Amino acid sequence: MGATHDPARTQLANYPFVMTLQPRFGDMDSLGHVNNVAIAALFEEARVGMNRALLGDSHVAPALSRPLPVVAARVEIDYLGEVRYPGEYRVGVGVGRVGTSSVLQVCAMFDGETCVALCDAVLVHRPATGPAPVPQEVRELLTTVMAFPVRVDAGV
Amino acid sequence: MGATHDPARTQLANYPFVMTLQPRFGDMDSLGHVNNVAIAALFEEARVGMNRALLGDSHVAPALSRPLPVVAARVEIDYLGEVRYPGEYRVGVGVGRVGTSSVLQVCAMFDGETCVALCDAVLVHRPATGPAPVPQEVRELLTTVMAFPVRVDAGV
Amino acid sequence: MGATHDPARTQLANYPFVMTLQPRFGDMDSLGHVNNVAIAALFEEARVGMNRALLGDSHVAPALSRPLPVVAARVEIDYLGEVRYPGEYRVGVGVGRVGTSSVLQVCAMFDGETCVALCDAVLVHRPATGPAPVPQEVRELLTTVMAFPVRVDAGV
Amino acid sequence: MGATHDPARTQLANYPFVMTLQPRFGDMDSLGHVNNVAIAALFEEARVGMNRALLGDSHVAPALSRPLPVVAARVEIDYLGEVRYPGEYRVGVGVGRVGTSSVLQVCAMFDGETCVALCDAVLVHRPATGPAPVPQEVRELLTTVMAFPVRVDAGV
Repeated sequence: MGATHDPARTQLANYPFVMTLQPRFGDMDSLGHVNNVAIAALFEEARVGMNRALLGDSHVAPALSRPLPVVAARVEIDYLGEVRYPGEYRVGVGVGRVGTSSVLQVCAMFDGETCVALCDAVLVHRPATGPAPVPQEVRELLTTVMAFPVRVDAGV
Repeated sequence: MGATHDPARTQLANYPFVMTLQPRFGDMDSLGHVNNVAIAALFEEARVGMNRALLGDSHVAPALSRPLPVVAARVEIDYLGEVRYPGEYRVGVGVGRVGTSSVLQVCAMFDGETCVALCDAVLVHRPATGPAPVPQEVRELLTTVMAFPVRVDAGV
Repeated sequence: MGATHDPARTQLANYPFVMTLQPRFGDMDSLGHVNNVAIAALFEEARVGMNRALLGDSHVAPALSRPLPVVAARVEIDYLGEVRYPGEYRVGVGVGRVGTSSVLQVCAMFDGETCVALCDAVLVHRPATGPAPVPQEVRELLTTVMAFPVRVDAGV
Repeated sequence: MGATHDPARTQLANYPFVMTLQPRFGDMDSLGHVNNVAIAALFEEARVGMNRALLGDSHVAPALSRPLPVVAARVEIDYLGEVRYPGEYRVGVGVGRVGTSSVLQVCAMFDGETCVALCDAVLVHRPATGPAPVPQEVRELLTTVMAFPVRVDAGV
């Protein structure tokens, strides 16, 4: 991401999963803004929401007999505009890339049509024995919610 | 940062300001780990601690007659190892770069000598009228806490 | 409150203001329940919601030229049942009593029709000079949202 | 508790367990005070600290083969003075009463020698099958950290 991020990132329509979230009074800091750490929590909430919609509660895929042990390896957030309380924000979430043992989830927060924050999160499938390949059935589910689907033009 | 970050980043001695922090019970998530959002809050605490030590309470430099309106523009965190509760962690903080209206603060969290997380935060001096140059007296204070000081070898 | 609280407290219909709230992933503790401190934050959110609906944003009554400096003097919560994530809960809020400089706000949280928690909060009007009488126009607004209105039977 | 609480409650010496805690930047609300919900989290931290000191990590008594499933049934807090950031506060904790299946923990927060908040918390031993008697070995441990021990004067 950074200063030169892809403009497609700031369009809600490019995210397959959307969740509406409301900051809380306690999310404000002493300056009266919704704090940057609270915004990280809102992005987490949206990611967990997509994972739950996809895999079922407790991160257990309905077809799986055990929960998926997942840890965050990297989170980066660009704060593009102010987030206010009270307010209502839509957060778009999608999968950006599925690696061997990791998944990139991309998110964006919108105030109306205006993108106020972007978040990239790298999650790793990590049982007690260390990073392990993402199970094939989870991999297939993740590819159903890719952000920015490749546009296939019939004429090409 | 990312996968190929500078190894100097994971040495506590390279950070001019160090703060010891303890996760709280409420920082644990349902998996029993200190949550990645809580780790973001710990990094914020250390950054604020350095700013306070440098500029005085309420982000007011003692020599300044007014508080500095500062907002986060970007925060990125690499989670390198597990953070546990209960536990005690040292967080190193320094200035990585001073731009015209922004400052890069670099931080790292240590479990003993082991670096468990890295954080880069870009803060912008932003009065109500929009981004504005960092005041000269603050700029000078910030340069006294640079991380990774350039090594000047006399023989060169 | 305590063990022998009024059964009227556990009926949503007895609260003039109702807000629907959703716990967040980060509200769970390491036992997988929504933590008791997070429940306190949800009650705060509902109280602030009622105050905002009544007095306007920033606790400023529309008819007032200045914000009301209010602090919590006492909060007590009875946890009657488990609060789960994910979930949706309705929180009822009303005024229980208006004192000279303080207001008792009474709240209850519901899972469907089942009351899972009760909260009493005493808020004090406290400018920098110390506790002060609740302004008359605020007092009048507060009496429009009393919980458990006294039933006046004409024949008695 | 309430307005007429026992003056012994506001003396740190009456609490067998003491923990020093520091509010965080994120604990402040938009008014610049440490928020009342954050104070509830600080009291929780101190209670968990005492339980850990007494029973071992994860609420497992060293002599026990299984963790104790404990839930909060009631928490009440009196806010007596302002809690500021930055700051350092001592929180005293003790056991007020051991019931059949519940324990009353009493706490107080001090700014220097001044008590700024009191907290009573009722915790219940509640396995999946419902409230159950506090195990005898835990009961004995709890009685070693009673607050306000009855003074036995030999001459009386």
